[in-house]
Parts: sequence; C-alpha cells; structure tokens
Amino acid sequence: MAKIAFIGLGNMGGPMLRNLLKAGHECVAFDLSAPALAAAEQAGARPAASPGDAARGVDGVITMLPAGTIVRAVYEGPGGVIANAAPGTLLIDCSTIDVASARAVAEAATAAGLSMVDAPVSGGVAGAAAATLTFMVGGPPETFEAARPILAAMGGTIVHAGAAGTGQAAKICNNMLLGISMIGTCEAFMLAKRLGLDAQKLFDISSKASGQCWSLTSYCPVPGPVASAPSNRDYQPGFAAAMMLKDLKLAQEAAAGVDAATPLGAAAAALYSLYCNAGHAGTDFSGIIAMIDGSD
Amino acid sequence: MAKIAFIGLGNMGGPMLRNLLKAGHECVAFDLSAPALAAAEQAGARPAASPGDAARGVDGVITMLPAGTIVRAVYEGPGGVIANAAPGTLLIDCSTIDVASARAVAEAATAAGLSMVDAPVSGGVAGAAAATLTFMVGGPPETFEAARPILAAMGGTIVHAGAAGTGQAAKICNNMLLGISMIGTCEAFMLAKRLGLDAQKLFDISSKASGQCWSLTSYCPVPGPVASAPSNRDYQPGFAAAMMLKDLKLAQEAAAGVDAATPLGAAAAALYSLYCNAGHAGTDFSGIIAMIDGSD
Repeated sequence: MAKIAFIGLGNMGGPMLRNLLKAGHECVAFDLSAPALAAAEQAGARPAASPGDAARGVDGVITMLPAGTIVRAVYEGPGGVIANAAPGTLLIDCSTIDVASARAVAEAATAAGLSMVDAPVSGGVAGAAAATLTFMVGGPPETFEAARPILAAMGGTIVHAGAAGTGQAAKICNNMLLGISMIGTCEAFMLAKRLGLDAQKLFDISSKASGQCWSLTSYCPVPGPVASAPSNRDYQPGFAAAMMLKDLKLAQEAAAGVDAATPLGAAAAALYSLYCNAGHAGTDFSGIIAMIDGSD
Repeated sequence: MAKIAFIGLGNMGGPMLRNLLKAGHECVAFDLSAPALAAAEQAGARPAASPGDAARGVDGVITMLPAGTIVRAVYEGPGGVIANAAPGTLLIDCSTIDVASARAVAEAATAAGLSMVDAPVSGGVAGAAAATLTFMVGGPPETFEAARPILAAMGGTIVHAGAAGTGQAAKICNNMLLGISMIGTCEAFMLAKRLGLDAQKLFDISSKASGQCWSLTSYCPVPGPVASAPSNRDYQPGFAAAMMLKDLKLAQEAAAGVDAATPLGAAAAALYSLYCNAGHAGTDFSGIIAMIDGSD
C-alpha cells in the first residue's frame, strides 16, 4: 500500500479519500475548509497544513479541485505540490479542468522530475461513494500504469486516453456530446407532445431506432420510461446543470484554442447558461426539458 | 391475399412493390415515370393509367411519394384515390410528409367512408429491398390492425404510434434527434482530433459512457471504429444528406405549427442546408463531418 496525499475534500474528493483509506492506503489530507479536513481526519487521514506540507514524503499526490486556476496554484504556487514533493513522486489530478492548464501543470511537474497524469472522472457523487468512477487518464504509459492500482481503489473503469491533457479532452468531448444529445432528446419529446405523440411511444420507437442515445435510453428527461432517471424524482441531481455548463464552457474554451467549429456545442452551452441563470444551477441537467417546453 | 394498388414506384416504392408481389398479393401499379411503370409490370403488377384508375376495385391502396403536396394531389385531386376507391378501402400512405397534410388527407378519406393510416418508414433503400423496414403507423387501432399484415410483407417492425399523423410525428421527432446527435458526434470527433485525442480512443470511451448514441456506435462518422458505416466507403449513402435535410425541414415546419422550441433542431437544419448547398446533397449525412472539420 502507498502513502498518498489527497488535496480537495469536497463532494467528490471526500468519498474518494475514504475509498483510498478503505483500501489500506496511508493518507495525508488537505483542504481549505476546516470541517472538510476534520471529516477526513475522522475517517483516518492525517491532516496537513498546506498542499506543500501534504506532498512531502508521500508516494503520490491526488488532487480533486474545482477549476484550472486552483489546480495551477496548488501545484505550481509557492508552498505548492511541485516545490515540495520528492523527485519521482506520482501526481494524479482528478479535477475536470481546461486542457491547456492540464498540459501546463504536467509540463511543470515533468520539468521538476515528477510524474503526472490528468485523470478526470465520470460517475458523479454516487460513483465516488461506491468506488465505481470511470477515470479518463492522460499521460505517459508508464505513469498511467503507476497510477492504475491507486485509481482502482476509487473506480471501476480506468482508460488510458493518450498523452498529457487527453484525459481532459476525452471528458469534455464526451460531455459536450452528452449536453447536445440531452437537449436534442428534450426537443424531440416536447415536439412530440405538441404533435399528439405519446412520450412512451416515442421512447419505445426511438430507443430501438436511429435516435437512440444514452440521454434517451438511460436518463430519459420525461418521467415514466426510465425508472432510475432524475425525471422521476423531480429532477434532483444526478448531474447538476451547473456541472454540465462547466463542462460545456471548457469544451468551448478548448474549441476556441484550437479553432474547432462546434456550432451545436456552442448552442448547448448557451442554452445551459439560460437554464442555470434562471435559477436552476442545482437542478439535474435533464430538467432543461421544462425550459425547452416553456413550462418553467 | 389482397388486391393492392401501389402508387409511387421510386427507389423505395419499387422494391416495396416487389416484396408485396413476392408475398402473393395481386398488385396494380401507377407512377408518372414510364420506365418505373414498365419495371413494375415486368415484376408482375398490372399497370394503371392514373391514381384513380389504380384505386378502383382493390382492397387497399399504398402510396410512397416524395412530398405532402403530391400526396394530397394523388388522394384528393380529381381522378384521385379518394374519389375512385370503393367505400371501405384501406389506404396506407408510406411517404414521409408534413403532419398537417397527413392529417388533412386522413380526414378527407374518413369523410368519404375510407380507412387510412400514415405509415412512414425507416430503413432506407436497403431495408425496402430486404423487407426489413420499420413502419411507424398513425391511425385508428382497427385500421392499424387491418394494415399490419400488408405492411408485414414489406417490413420487420410495425409500430402503432397513435392517432392519424402520429406516424409522421414519430418519424420526424426521431430523425430530428438523429440529425442533432450526428452533428454532435461529428463535433466531438473533430474537437478531439485537434486536442490530440485519438478517434478510436474517443469511440472506446464514449461508446460505453454518457455520450453513447446510435450516430456514434452504429454509424460512426469517422472511418475505422464501425466497419459497416458509410464513413468506411467514402460516405456513399446510406441515408443521403438531402433526405436528412428534408426530415429536418419537416420537423421545423411541424414545430412552427405548434409553437414548439427546437433550437438545436433548427441549427441542425441550417447546417444540413449549408452542407447540401455546398454540393453534398447526395453524400451520406454522416459526411457532414468534413464540413465541421473544415476539410471539405
């Protein structure tokens, strides 16, 4: 078992740390929130005073943070991870951030003699608690192999996407497609309703036809057809609209940086902005069907 | 076996008629094209002089026509089907047309003592030839039941969508979602490419994740991951971009008629217009990936 520093003990990081402890790893923890740090201590981790303090004398450092600027500060800042970790330490950033920041941090880490992967997750808070997260990992093959047994304590599927930054690329490309297909599914159901076509009928037909998509089949935005979908529990997340908007904005930022045309991705980002700004940031992202319908 | 008039002997209607003949039905055929009519005669159908002539003395009339105005002319025009068919004749329109025209024709037929369903298909020319079409059928339950054994000679899946017009509604709602998810899939692959994420990697990840959709999994627009996809045969259709544009325009027309908001559906229609106008009307609809990429 390894000695691991965990930085960022929020809704995702907290349960991920507990799964590392459960697997027998020795953990040091850091968060700016005193209650989060106290909870980590109670779960069996040793609290640290700063990211740099946490990163000293460990085999690996895992971060789960809300934005690229924060990731860069934690790794590259004074008193940060890179300045304090011993050469050879394995760095794993599980945050969902912009591709450019992910690549910049990996480059700084490599220059300092450290190994790093970007390893954003899908599966949400439920997946973090159940240790069933999917990790999309970008970095050198040998660093991926070194990270794999540690990630296995927190997730079920661990995929090597390619070089540094491709873990982030895989996550935002997948989630851009998800945001687009969710809105498309909502539009199809609301058009059907107004044309007198029953929602269950459209579900039965399209789930076996060329309109089939995960947003329809596994996460149906109208109540009824898929029992486990948030539409059947008043659109409690699940995956909050604010998180979808974050990923769509990251996709737009990445697209602008490489001159990629993503017309539907841009429209999806605009529609989720409208929906979040209307007071629904905390609603499940499938709840946007009410805005498409005009009923909310 | 029934005596059936078949009107509209194009790329779809021709093979559909041949499957009716194969199943043992006695067929009368009509088309404005003399070569199409001659081919039908050679296949075993008796040629008729007009739609009304075809519709006299048969148990059922099937139409497969390119537009709502043509369907209305064939059914409601002087010398048309409704004026000439005996009371009780079963009318089946397999054309993909606007919901309003489908409902108007069904109403006129019912007023004249005839039974009618709209029964648009999916499955394309290959499905028409192999008798594996999917029929989405709108009309009264007893008319659906009467039509079912006849449709069974031409297709594999026959679904009752609801009242008159809902067959058309099901088709355009499904195909609107298909058009949106195809463009979304193209955008995801092209963004991934520019971010250095390998297409096969994105396929492997998203086909098992929340971005999964038929456009990705069964009809992948980049060559390689799905052997049967048109992307592996230079984007030969398959399903031509012009046909996708037709369906997206029908969806926009229907949406306008019922004040439905379909922002991504509208954007998809605009993008397929651009693609068709650039000379690609006859290319498979997945070929739009080249326009998204800027490589064509």
